[in-house]
Amino acid sequence: MFEKYKKLLTQYVAFKSISTDEAYKPEMLKTANWLMELLGSFGFKTKLLKGKFCNPIVFAEYVVNSKFETVLIYGHYDVQPAEKVDGWGSDPFKLVEIGNQKSKFKNKFIARGVVDNKGQNLIHIVAIGELIKQGKLKYNVKFMIEGNEETANPDIPQIVTKNKKLLQSDYIMISDGEIHGTSPTIEASLRGGFSMTVTYITGKTNLHSGLFGGAIPNAAHELTKLVASLYDKNNRVVIPGFYDGVINVDSLTKNIHKKLHGNGKHITKLAGVQVLCTEKGCDFYTQTGLRPTIQATGIKTGYIGDGYANIVPAMAEARLNVRVVSPQNPAKVFELIKKYIKIHAPKHVSVSITHTEFNQPILVDINNPKVKEVRGLLKKVYKKEPLVKYVGGSIPIVADFKKLLGVETLLVSLGNDDCNMHGIDENFSVDLIKKGLDFSTQFFSK
Amino acid sequence: MFEKYKKLLTQYVAFKSISTDEAYKPEMLKTANWLMELLGSFGFKTKLLKGKFCNPIVFAEYVVNSKFETVLIYGHYDVQPAEKVDGWGSDPFKLVEIGNQKSKFKNKFIARGVVDNKGQNLIHIVAIGELIKQGKLKYNVKFMIEGNEETANPDIPQIVTKNKKLLQSDYIMISDGEIHGTSPTIEASLRGGFSMTVTYITGKTNLHSGLFGGAIPNAAHELTKLVASLYDKNNRVVIPGFYDGVINVDSLTKNIHKKLHGNGKHITKLAGVQVLCTEKGCDFYTQTGLRPTIQATGIKTGYIGDGYANIVPAMAEARLNVRVVSPQNPAKVFELIKKYIKIHAPKHVSVSITHTEFNQPILVDINNPKVKEVRGLLKKVYKKEPLVKYVGGSIPIVADFKKLLGVETLLVSLGNDDCNMHGIDENFSVDLIKKGLDFSTQFFSK
Repeated sequence: MFEKYKKLLTQYVAFKSISTDEAYKPEMLKTANWLMELLGSFGFKTKLLKGKFCNPIVFAEYVVNSKFETVLIYGHYDVQPAEKVDGWGSDPFKLVEIGNQKSKFKNKFIARGVVDNKGQNLIHIVAIGELIKQGKLKYNVKFMIEGNEETANPDIPQIVTKNKKLLQSDYIMISDGEIHGTSPTIEASLRGGFSMTVTYITGKTNLHSGLFGGAIPNAAHELTKLVASLYDKNNRVVIPGFYDGVINVDSLTKNIHKKLHGNGKHITKLAGVQVLCTEKGCDFYTQTGLRPTIQATGIKTGYIGDGYANIVPAMAEARLNVRVVSPQNPAKVFELIKKYIKIHAPKHVSVSITHTEFNQPILVDINNPKVKEVRGLLKKVYKKEPLVKYVGGSIPIVADFKKLLGVETLLVSLGNDDCNMHGIDENFSVDLIKKGLDFSTQFFSK
Repeated sequence: MFEKYKKLLTQYVAFKSISTDEAYKPEMLKTANWLMELLGSFGFKTKLLKGKFCNPIVFAEYVVNSKFETVLIYGHYDVQPAEKVDGWGSDPFKLVEIGNQKSKFKNKFIARGVVDNKGQNLIHIVAIGELIKQGKLKYNVKFMIEGNEETANPDIPQIVTKNKKLLQSDYIMISDGEIHGTSPTIEASLRGGFSMTVTYITGKTNLHSGLFGGAIPNAAHELTKLVASLYDKNNRVVIPGFYDGVINVDSLTKNIHKKLHGNGKHITKLAGVQVLCTEKGCDFYTQTGLRPTIQATGIKTGYIGDGYANIVPAMAEARLNVRVVSPQNPAKVFELIKKYIKIHAPKHVSVSITHTEFNQPILVDINNPKVKEVRGLLKKVYKKEPLVKYVGGSIPIVADFKKLLGVETLLVSLGNDDCNMHGIDENFSVDLIKKGLDFSTQFFSK
């Protein structure tokens, strides 16, 4: 099965299915067609779902027995941009295998998308294809593999709503993440959130910094005061009510996180930073997985081109990314931030605020029977106790599935944590691919 | 004389001598040649001075008698960009005259450069040309009219040094500013200063705001803390020693400034802001003319393009424009700011700082005999007591003249204060042009 997987992965990663660049539109269609053909060859009924803006979504369905339970597997065939000149050791769109005896994962496949997400969704495709051939498939299976995960597909809610019946299922499975070291993981939560733009206007036009500087309001000064005011010296957000609803971490999770955190040096090394700036007494995993945050992702004010402009900027804009945790409501948190800004901004500043869609945070009940089954199986395959991972990122579609289909998602990561997803030399451990194929086969097998 | 001036100004402003755009290089040369021809026609010996980067500088000399004193008049023939689509009422490079009975200045000429600086240097050219014709010129006169004032000509110190003998003179006169209302002004000081860039690095690369946000340093947060920390709530710069050397304003000047300031509404209206943010108890004119300041002119961090990037920025950069007043030393003030930043920045931030040339502040002795003569003449021509103006801006060449030639500059503004220099519909009051011609004629006349 591994050899078949390798052959197919070689073809799959060769498509330059880069969704962030319109120029690759034809390549997206080729990739979708390749998936349709592959799934069709296993006996799946296939169909392309189309949205207003997005690349076609590959939908495929295989019914073993209408009385069986149905599992919907979500994945994506689009990838981040990659060019050899970025620093790759080889052509990013040609699968290569390298051996490194020093690494905890000895052999690795390298290519763009090898982990995120082609390599991971292909594990389920190949394992299930084999089970169909052997007549051992335990569930009816549906695949939904989209082409705009990397660009935050705006059509998803509409497409899911429109195809509610088609997508209906008992469980949803997503494998689009990393395990921790050599320990398998099940993801128990995802932060939700939104982005917002705060614009400060202090005057009709930029003025001369010589003729007016020091005597009139400076939008850059005013906005920096706002952003700087958001955190106290213990790195807590000072906005009243910002932490309302946040659940205290239970002592079991706290202990696991403390152990994972250790002295934190592996984290600062991975992140390329000097120190961690968690809240007082908080470890990295609790901080990113179970605590809300506000991060400035960009500031725009004045002149930042070559040379200098001698101006007092009349406009300044901050982009903020807000992350909330279950059961917080991102819309409510937005109102708190808005209220704080309105109170904080001086009267002579004209303030405007916009925001993106609100993504709901996700909390999986790790004691539900299906999750327990997955955990047991992971332990059997990886020969290690699975870790419960609280993820700082968001996968908006998980909230959409919950809201629109009423179905919980099983978040089973299969990638190695040094895979360098989105970076150069993206790689997937051969050992973990084999374990992934084993897990998928056992999970879907009668 | 006015009709001749008008005819010449019409030709002069028609040249698109925009120095900020390389595309207009040929137009610069045409303008310089036009000036050479004009000055030559009055009997001046002319010459082009060339630098490494700059457009040719028009130099012209007329010797009446080698025993007479020499006045060097500095001006510039380059202008700011202008296009009708910016909102001009007419083609910016075609002189038009409009009448507005409501304005304190009834008739005005409108065109790019009409005040800044073609219209002002042409006043001296025409007045002196006429005096030569009549045999009444009292001084030997030199003109230095450059083509890169708007782009901060980097060649000036080198050209002035190289042509020290050529430029040697007893007095220098510059008319490149605005009078106050209908009161003539003499400029008694210019702020000096420099620009600097402060770069904060908190990590090797931008990181995912979901996966890392809240647990690692954010360069945007750190830099906003620095910029926000520069001022106290009374708008004073908090850097130790920043105001060292600043001279207390004498009570005469204070009273004049208070009177000019009034309730400040004409200033907020002119500036297009809601309030003034001067230091406690400080009027606008004292603040901008006689107090140092630090102004953020731009901040660069994170992603500010369309949409959002979910990142924790690893780099943030602030552009600061620093203004100092005589007798402060900009190099010393830079060291104070640098020291403050080094102390203020957290250990986990890697800081780098660069700066531009230091421009020395200028203080004119308003009691020196030549300045007194100019003030007396201004009173006679404008029929109003001249105001002494402390200017917040810098004219770097004034410091260069003082340092390299050892000569003080007479700063006699001729423009109206609603001229909208650098903006749309730049205009010059016809009444003030006539007064300017009168002043120049009387000053240079035997």
